[in-house]
Formats: sequence, structure tokens, C-alpha cells
Amino acid sequence: MTKKGRTLAENVADELLAMITIDKKFNYGDKLPNENELSADLQVSRTTLREAIRILVAHHVLEIKRGKGTYVKNNRELNEEFSLKGLSTFPMDVKDLYEMRLIFEPQSAYYAAKRATDKELERILYYGRLEEEQILKKEDRTEAEQAFHKAIAKATHNEFMNRLMPILYQAIDKGVLLSDTNEEIVQNTLHDHRMIMEFLSKRDAEGAKTAMKLHILHAMRGFGITEE
Amino acid sequence: MTKKGRTLAENVADELLAMITIDKKFNYGDKLPNENELSADLQVSRTTLREAIRILVAHHVLEIKRGKGTYVKNNRELNEEFSLKGLSTFPMDVKDLYEMRLIFEPQSAYYAAKRATDKELERILYYGRLEEEQILKKEDRTEAEQAFHKAIAKATHNEFMNRLMPILYQAIDKGVLLSDTNEEIVQNTLHDHRMIMEFLSKRDAEGAKTAMKLHILHAMRGFGITEE
Repeated sequence: MTKKGRTLAENVADELLAMITIDKKFNYGDKLPNENELSADLQVSRTTLREAIRILVAHHVLEIKRGKGTYVKNNRELNEEFSLKGLSTFPMDVKDLYEMRLIFEPQSAYYAAKRATDKELERILYYGRLEEEQILKKEDRTEAEQAFHKAIAKATHNEFMNRLMPILYQAIDKGVLLSDTNEEIVQNTLHDHRMIMEFLSKRDAEGAKTAMKLHILHAMRGFGITEE
Repeated sequence: MTKKGRTLAENVADELLAMITIDKKFNYGDKLPNENELSADLQVSRTTLREAIRILVAHHVLEIKRGKGTYVKNNRELNEEFSLKGLSTFPMDVKDLYEMRLIFEPQSAYYAAKRATDKELERILYYGRLEEEQILKKEDRTEAEQAFHKAIAKATHNEFMNRLMPILYQAIDKGVLLSDTNEEIVQNTLHDHRMIMEFLSKRDAEGAKTAMKLHILHAMRGFGITEE
């Protein structure tokens, strides 16, 4: 099995990156072995290896020092490149994002139902109702939608989830437009949001979780994203 | 219902923060209303409001300009403060982290079982076996443990998950020591890891997910973290 839709050089670049980040075979600042050695080690041609190195140079993982060789870029730069800081700018796959939402948001709704203060619950319901109005008036609902989901994340009382949510939404915001042209999607959104609000109001954690899962699955279907 | 173990001023600080980040009632660079107005609006005393403002100043959300008033700090700084960039340094609650792992890692194991290339599966099993050896020899297994979980995240072929995992582990690393003094925890870890590896080898996604969930639940029990 190989990773789908990838060139051999991309797979080799991936393998080299794992040798640095997971295996720690090469550390920051290290010089890579020469081409003959490394291509033999990875069982690829020198042409493919060179292409893989070019990819990692473009991603600031490696750097070529003229007349010296190929080096792993220093710690700080590599850490930044591979920190979540870059997540909102990185061209993130819509499918990857929605898979993450599918993991993350139903459980957020679960914890929110259990832990929201009365004030936090009020805020969630406020934005839920605002979004509903905007949908019915066919107005732009992007901000109310984000506020609704952020308010839920806040009510989990889990600082990690609370901080992850805006990052997730920044990435969604850049890559994805809410597709309200399709009447079925609009009706699903209205219905799902009402269910989420109803279960949260009753502090029914399992209900809120299931309604949120349905909501994300509906969105995924809307984007034509299928499980594999 | 109010948020547990918090002072009134902390709750007010929280509310003010939500008025900025969720409600967008105050934007970056805005001057806050005067104390009388704001304390009436929030239905708290001026003393409590001042304490709440002090908390947000300490967290770089607000700044006091002498003789001018209290301002919401500018966009860039606030975004950085509340981006995941700070997650690895922020003093994260162990419970928050483990809740996040419990959401995130079972599903990672599920996708890894379905999507890992043969090479990625090899890498997972290599680190799983290495860790097993180290546990039996009572050697430090921190690095093998991290490599095992990172290799699983990589095999999800989901770039978001792949990038989230190191951040999660950096945070865990700082806050938590693997407690191998307890023989029960050691035996559970050995057993759980073997199950995870077995299900992954058979590409049994539901099995791998369930074994991973058990593994995290065992760790949570080891830390005395209970659901609420």
C-alpha cells in the first residue's frame, strides 16, 4: 500500500521527513549522508532522491549549502514550520479539516452540555438563534456560525479545545465557503442547529453529541466528502 | 451553574474575553467603556471589574494606557496569544490534555489502521516493539512512546492530525512524567500497546480504535483523572 495520489519523490520526501521528526536519525543542523549512500539506503534512484530533497528544501526542512552539502535546517525554523502556528495558513485539505471537526466537535458538544455555565449556555443559544434568523433571511451567517461553535468550545471548560477551535475555523474560513445555494443543505443546517440547541438546553450530553455529529456529517455530504 | 474553582474576578475576566473573541463587541484596538458603565453592564462591583481587567492585562489581552483608558490589545498580539502556538508553553491542565487525547487518538488509530502504507505500519510496529523492550528492561521509554504515537498520527494521512500530535506531546511532556513506579500501570501499558499493534497489523480499524481508547483511559486512571 502506498499513499494515494503521490509521486514517488513525494513519498521519499515524506520518508526523509519521518527520519528527521520521528526517528531522529538526523537532527537539526546535521549534514545528510552523500547521495550514493542515501539513495541506496532509501532504495531509490539518485534522480528521485534529488527531487525529494528539492521538495523538502521548498518546505524549509532541508537546506543546501553550496559546496558543503545538504543540511537539516535548525531547530527553531523546523519547529515553527511544523507547529500548529502554520495550520491556518497551510493549504489544508477540506477533507482533513472535516475529519478533524468530526472527531472534535461532537465531543465538545458533549462536554458543553455537561459543563456550560448558565451564561455560557445563554451565549450559545443566542448565536444559534441569530444564525437561524440569518439563514431564514438569507443573510450572511458566517460570523454567527463561528460564534456559535466557538461558544460551544468555550463551554467545554477545556482550554485545549477552546484554543483549538479558532484555529480550526480560521482554516475552514480560508478554504471553504458555506454553500447555501443548495436548499437541502440549508434545511439540514436549520434542523441540526435546532437539535443541538434543544439537547444543550436540556443538558443532554449524548443527545448534543449525536446532533453535532449529524451536523458535521451533513456538511461533509454537502462537500461530497466520503469516508474511506 | 458557575465554573468550578474560580474566583468571581476570573469569571468576569472570562466573560470579558468572550465579549472580545466571540461576541466581537470590542475589537482589537478599541477602548473599553468606563468602569461605571462596564461594571453595571456586567453586574459586578468596580473592585471585581478592576481585578478582572488586571487578569486580562497579565494575559496580554488588554492594556492600560496611562491617562487614556483600557484598550484591547492589537490583533496580531491577541491572535498569537490565543493561537495554538502558545499551547505547548501554556500551563495546560493534565485533565484537559488527556481529554483531548481521548477524543483524538482512538480515531487516529482507526484511520491509521485503514490508511497506513506498509512502510508506515512497519515504523509503528518498530517503535511499539522498541518501547516494549525498554519497559521490560526498565529503561526510559519516553522517546519510543512519542515516536510510536507520532508514527500513528502520520499514518492517518490527515495533515491536521499529523501536526496536532507533536503539539499535544510537547504539552504532555512538560506537564507529565510517565509514572512507571506503579506495576499495574506498566502491565496495562504493555498489554494495551500489544493490542494496538495487533489490531493495526490486521488493519482492524475498530479494534485499533478501541484498544487505543482503553490505553488512554488506563493512563487517565493512572493519573487519577475522572470523568465528570
